[in-house]
Amino acid sequence: MSKYKELKRQCYEANMHLPQLELVIYTFGNVSAVDRQEAVFAIKPSGVDYQQLKPEDIVIVDFDARVVEGRMRPSSDTKTHAFLYKAWERIGGICHTHSTYAVSWAQAQRDIPILGTTHADHFTQDVPCAPPMADELIQGDYEHMTGQQIIDCFAEKKLSYEEVEMVLLGNHGPFTWGKSAEKAVYNSKVLEELARMAYLTLQINPEAPRLKEALIRKHYDRKHGQNAYYGQEY
Amino acid sequence: MSKYKELKRQCYEANMHLPQLELVIYTFGNVSAVDRQEAVFAIKPSGVDYQQLKPEDIVIVDFDARVVEGRMRPSSDTKTHAFLYKAWERIGGICHTHSTYAVSWAQAQRDIPILGTTHADHFTQDVPCAPPMADELIQGDYEHMTGQQIIDCFAEKKLSYEEVEMVLLGNHGPFTWGKSAEKAVYNSKVLEELARMAYLTLQINPEAPRLKEALIRKHYDRKHGQNAYYGQEY
Amino acid sequence: MSKYKELKRQCYEANMHLPQLELVIYTFGNVSAVDRQEAVFAIKPSGVDYQQLKPEDIVIVDFDARVVEGRMRPSSDTKTHAFLYKAWERIGGICHTHSTYAVSWAQAQRDIPILGTTHADHFTQDVPCAPPMADELIQGDYEHMTGQQIIDCFAEKKLSYEEVEMVLLGNHGPFTWGKSAEKAVYNSKVLEELARMAYLTLQINPEAPRLKEALIRKHYDRKHGQNAYYGQEY
Amino acid sequence: MSKYKELKRQCYEANMHLPQLELVIYTFGNVSAVDRQEAVFAIKPSGVDYQQLKPEDIVIVDFDARVVEGRMRPSSDTKTHAFLYKAWERIGGICHTHSTYAVSWAQAQRDIPILGTTHADHFTQDVPCAPPMADELIQGDYEHMTGQQIIDCFAEKKLSYEEVEMVLLGNHGPFTWGKSAEKAVYNSKVLEELARMAYLTLQINPEAPRLKEALIRKHYDRKHGQNAYYGQEY
Repeated sequence: MSKYKELKRQCYEANMHLPQLELVIYTFGNVSAVDRQEAVFAIKPSGVDYQQLKPEDIVIVDFDARVVEGRMRPSSDTKTHAFLYKAWERIGGICHTHSTYAVSWAQAQRDIPILGTTHADHFTQDVPCAPPMADELIQGDYEHMTGQQIIDCFAEKKLSYEEVEMVLLGNHGPFTWGKSAEKAVYNSKVLEELARMAYLTLQINPEAPRLKEALIRKHYDRKHGQNAYYGQEY
Repeated sequence: MSKYKELKRQCYEANMHLPQLELVIYTFGNVSAVDRQEAVFAIKPSGVDYQQLKPEDIVIVDFDARVVEGRMRPSSDTKTHAFLYKAWERIGGICHTHSTYAVSWAQAQRDIPILGTTHADHFTQDVPCAPPMADELIQGDYEHMTGQQIIDCFAEKKLSYEEVEMVLLGNHGPFTWGKSAEKAVYNSKVLEELARMAYLTLQINPEAPRLKEALIRKHYDRKHGQNAYYGQEY
Repeated sequence: MSKYKELKRQCYEANMHLPQLELVIYTFGNVSAVDRQEAVFAIKPSGVDYQQLKPEDIVIVDFDARVVEGRMRPSSDTKTHAFLYKAWERIGGICHTHSTYAVSWAQAQRDIPILGTTHADHFTQDVPCAPPMADELIQGDYEHMTGQQIIDCFAEKKLSYEEVEMVLLGNHGPFTWGKSAEKAVYNSKVLEELARMAYLTLQINPEAPRLKEALIRKHYDRKHGQNAYYGQEY
Repeated sequence: MSKYKELKRQCYEANMHLPQLELVIYTFGNVSAVDRQEAVFAIKPSGVDYQQLKPEDIVIVDFDARVVEGRMRPSSDTKTHAFLYKAWERIGGICHTHSTYAVSWAQAQRDIPILGTTHADHFTQDVPCAPPMADELIQGDYEHMTGQQIIDCFAEKKLSYEEVEMVLLGNHGPFTWGKSAEKAVYNSKVLEELARMAYLTLQINPEAPRLKEALIRKHYDRKHGQNAYYGQEY
């Protein structure tokens, strides 16, 4: 029996939540879950429909994107996942979708502005939109450089990947991550909702202002600050 | 056995209607139900997913937001509920959501204008949008002052909480209330639909006029006036 | 046993399709079915939630809106139905909803232009939007005059109620009708879809032209003309 | 027993996916599946509701649109299907719907621009919108000429029907095709999603640029090029 059975199960279940949450149709997405001790991660096989997907189809690969276990070809975005796991040591899962509103902001090449407390309940910055890559990088090791593009975007905007757990790739779509694969999926759903609310807000009032700093701090800190009082202490 | 079992059940069921009515995802909302004789109210515990929520998780607190019964921490918005129950003696339930269209109007910092009879079937005024609070109030007893902010908004606009059972908090989202927790949830759903219709109306015709006074009075009075003839007399 | 049992059943089932087709929430709509020989019609009782509605709750009224059979108060819009049944002798059912897109066009006080063949598959004219009534009519026998308002609108625009089976009441919402209650409900669903498509079309291209006359005639006639070849001959 | 039983089953199942994928209401669509060896195709009967449709209702017709087997009248669009099967020898299925966003672009008489990688994952060109036909063609053999109109549009824009498997008919709606009936339905769903994303993108940023050529080539080629590495090799 595979020693990665539990890791595959986590990855499988997180993947299956994508169609349930109406974040993907057909094969338009993938989730991975990492095992830091073994230095491998589990990822969806490429081009497999969610209705056909089985736990044993999940592929185990290492941080250089080489298959360690599995009969199927891993997601075509595997190198992007590998790059991020290597660069960001404290993430446990990554999710990529083509959810409608997040893709629309990515195609518009716009950051999603922080307009309300729903956004500040999760983080304090606009959702960053990385610009499209230079042609020579696209023509080279594209999926690897997609990881680099995300890291560069966070460096340039001085963002922390532990606070802002999502990015838009210009003209492509969202990547999200978190402590676990399940948290990465949660962030994809939250992103889609933030993208939809920001879209509607600016349709109603094109001059809608950025959320004021005091509300950003209050809402973020009551959930994530040192003296957080949101949620339960188990 | 708890003497609040029935109150908890009412609160639990009203809460569970929020995801069923597509008004919340994950933990984005809370409903409370009051017992005026005992001077306590039942409220959702903080940060608990609706899929995990059980009737016995509901927390009983008094009007100063102190826990009377329950193992869990109550909603982080508990002080806002407490403030409103204290100030407004004839309400029986309160509901808070982050429903998409209502939040978008709140983020746009705009009252929702009364544009049709669907709106006038429920009340005769625009849905008020309270402005964001001053920084020193946000940094102080924030959730308590959120209740104050709602009361101030109603005083300034000369609104009756018994007629207008809903408000938007600027940049945050809607609070609704009513004779019971169930009615508060009903008002949240109605608000979301009014917000969506007003959005679409102004996209179709940015000059769409306010509903004329005679239609406002006719529709409101046939349901809520002295000679109301809508509905059944049981 | 009631001699109207079958009429009540038809009316009940047509009503129950409204929430299934996502045309109403709560109590926001009503359908009636006529029996021309008996000169009565069956209609939903006022203010009853669709989840509670039972076939035996349906009320039988005559063309002067007087209750003939039933323990409950009929829909507050009963006089409008009665007026239309009296005026238009070849309709068998009437439907009223507050469906989102149709209401939004009504609130915008705009006819829905004929922009495509989906529309022309059903009729050859814009969906008419009747203007709001004069104040003295609203303050008088409102629901009766609502019927008059619809007839006047059709007379002024020279429309045939046998071709155009729907109208928007300005600031209120849609009424639809047809050979049967079921057909009236069908028309409500088609109207909602036409309203949504016209909204989106004009967002994409505010200058989108009216459908050309040759396509209007072709699509209408292949379904409804003398030499129609759409559908089955049973 | 019919020798076309398997062909009818394929056609039936592809048709039934349309309401499940929320691409049609009532009778608003049709799918056909071809048998190249027998030079016939199976198609939905005209005007039959999807809820009533049975596998044995499917009609078998030849490439001149003459009924070969079946008790019912075939879809009123049968001649368009026949024309395309004759003209394009390597397609196995055709699908026509009135899906909301695709119809809205068709009514707007606009090509859907290629704005992102979701689009380039499928093909490298804008979704073409054929202009409305000349009046004399509409008044003549309309459905036959609709096929001609599609072929002409592809010739004029120098598109390959094997790469671009979809078209909008101006003021009408989409036709899609593919290696099989099921693939044609898949393309209808993808088109609807591309139409929705393009609509939202241009609402967010009316100046959103066309996807850059390097990204178009990369995404198309990794799925469909000579060295494609997306999906599984079975």
